[in-house]
Amino acid sequence: MTGQETHQRIALASRPQGTPTLDNFRLEEGPLPTPGDGEFLARVIWLSLDPYMRGRMDDSKSYAASVPIDGTMEGGTVAQVIVSNNPKFAVGDIIEDRFGWQTHAISDGSTARKLNPGLAPISTAVGVLGMPGITAYVGLNTHGRPQEGETLVVGAATGAVGSLVGQLAKAKGLRVVGVAGGSDKCQFAVNELGFDACIDYRAAGDASTLRKQLAGQCPKGVDIYFENVGGITLEAVVPLMNVGGRIPVCGMISYYNAGGLGASATDGPNRLPLVWRTILVNRLSVRGFIITDHYDQFPQFLKDVGPLVKDGTIVYRESVAKGIAEAPQAFLDLLQGGNFGKQLVAVSPDPTR
Amino acid sequence: MTGQETHQRIALASRPQGTPTLDNFRLEEGPLPTPGDGEFLARVIWLSLDPYMRGRMDDSKSYAASVPIDGTMEGGTVAQVIVSNNPKFAVGDIIEDRFGWQTHAISDGSTARKLNPGLAPISTAVGVLGMPGITAYVGLNTHGRPQEGETLVVGAATGAVGSLVGQLAKAKGLRVVGVAGGSDKCQFAVNELGFDACIDYRAAGDASTLRKQLAGQCPKGVDIYFENVGGITLEAVVPLMNVGGRIPVCGMISYYNAGGLGASATDGPNRLPLVWRTILVNRLSVRGFIITDHYDQFPQFLKDVGPLVKDGTIVYRESVAKGIAEAPQAFLDLLQGGNFGKQLVAVSPDPTR
Repeated sequence: MTGQETHQRIALASRPQGTPTLDNFRLEEGPLPTPGDGEFLARVIWLSLDPYMRGRMDDSKSYAASVPIDGTMEGGTVAQVIVSNNPKFAVGDIIEDRFGWQTHAISDGSTARKLNPGLAPISTAVGVLGMPGITAYVGLNTHGRPQEGETLVVGAATGAVGSLVGQLAKAKGLRVVGVAGGSDKCQFAVNELGFDACIDYRAAGDASTLRKQLAGQCPKGVDIYFENVGGITLEAVVPLMNVGGRIPVCGMISYYNAGGLGASATDGPNRLPLVWRTILVNRLSVRGFIITDHYDQFPQFLKDVGPLVKDGTIVYRESVAKGIAEAPQAFLDLLQGGNFGKQLVAVSPDPTR
Repeated sequence: MTGQETHQRIALASRPQGTPTLDNFRLEEGPLPTPGDGEFLARVIWLSLDPYMRGRMDDSKSYAASVPIDGTMEGGTVAQVIVSNNPKFAVGDIIEDRFGWQTHAISDGSTARKLNPGLAPISTAVGVLGMPGITAYVGLNTHGRPQEGETLVVGAATGAVGSLVGQLAKAKGLRVVGVAGGSDKCQFAVNELGFDACIDYRAAGDASTLRKQLAGQCPKGVDIYFENVGGITLEAVVPLMNVGGRIPVCGMISYYNAGGLGASATDGPNRLPLVWRTILVNRLSVRGFIITDHYDQFPQFLKDVGPLVKDGTIVYRESVAKGIAEAPQAFLDLLQGGNFGKQLVAVSPDPTR
């Protein structure tokens, strides 16, 4: 700590309309703060920048609070204790905490995690061994449920999350196909990360072209799509999914600036981002099902619901068309919602009525 | 069986382009077929008409085979055995089987289910106690996981599936809000089926209006959206979902004619139907997640992945911006994919490097 050392921070100057600009940020400088009883002063070494921060710049409801105007931008950091009035933290200790976009911070240590510099480079505590890393780990294992021999597609393939998703999946014996922007990233994904293939979405240009290229690299279809980008990657991959496929959704960077995230999400052309954003933000479980997969439950269903129908507890209503010749018109009406209740065709007289 | 009795069937004459018309169907008449050894002849009493049949008219890949041109339209039926060469089926037996859009069928009985007319009216075997009924039962219980006090929204509220979903959910102590087309259906849902409320989507007209009306009837948000219609109901409901909400997807009738189902589904404006169709047809599990919900896995993550990072098995790459003043520009670049690997800001020198 030198006499020249000052506190610098990046404040949120204004909320962005769509894509942020430098005008939305402001650098402020001031004297170093002084820790009180039980507190310490830490100097930030590494600040992590992550796509989720775009959401914090909006004032719409999300899974975490917005950064207030003039507030310091949030973010994960690795820092070193330089003054301490807290017996649990010694000067020189390296810690991980969410100090945000600033050079120094005061803390009581309640949310700090001490790092062991011998375990791995300390910058990994906000990267491959930090929040992005555990995102890859949990999303793949808990929600993706990978099985040897399956095929996984992941976007932002060389990013902090995608690069670990693909490597962990390779280690479990999956075929791994990445999507990234630019041939240099794609080459890195294959040559350095060990992916089986990587497609350049910028070169592809649109969803249907990207889908064709992905299909060529996924001859057995796609079992897991690790969703962290949205946009044309989402649109390209989903129709390639196999029966029983899993889509863990942890982000959608391509929508963050497009009015698709936050209060500015609209109906109409933006309806896919609007729906997909809610799936992410509110941790929804969406499950397509075809009832014939579940016919083993038929006896239990009849046992549970049959008596309720017989005793009138369950009300049902029927729309009846008379004669097989009327079936086509009744079906056309059904597709327009013209039926009222269960649509039947009385093909011959019911001998039990 | 009288001498006048003939066999009539509805054949698929041609594949529809978008909304089907009567021209896509053809009524054919001929002599009654004669059962062979081990077979019986059944007279169809009830034919069920269901939205899924629209998908069978297309020749695109789906979860079930298409009806061939000139083939008999498929469908669930209740029928009575009128001639039998099969000792397991007596003349007069009432059965449920998929005989399709025809007045009579020959069967060996292998897929027939004998009905007990004393249990409930036999037409319910293709309705509330048949395929639509078990769809409601499994979708709600297995995939919806209803809890007392939660709120459920279901579309096609007076239809075969929706009406049972809502009644079963009411019996479990949920608040049930239906969506249906027309005030008569909405009144029926509330007055006869016992729903707490029902919104007329035709009167609402668009997704954002419908969403406002639904929000007024769902003061605690929506925990389960039983998805059987798609379209503006889907777009209206999903943004109202609570954290941890569930969306069982069993159909999307509003897309069936719109080019959204089948090979005619396109990119661009139809990208939501294209994505949602695959979720249904391929029984996908989509799960939004926020990593801080899963931080209990952090110790296991570090134990599993930490050594792989240290020994170089897991490759990671960092993009480093130098100095806190560079953070805004580095962040703007990140949102455009300008980073390569994990984006960091080197705020002060790393004492461990």
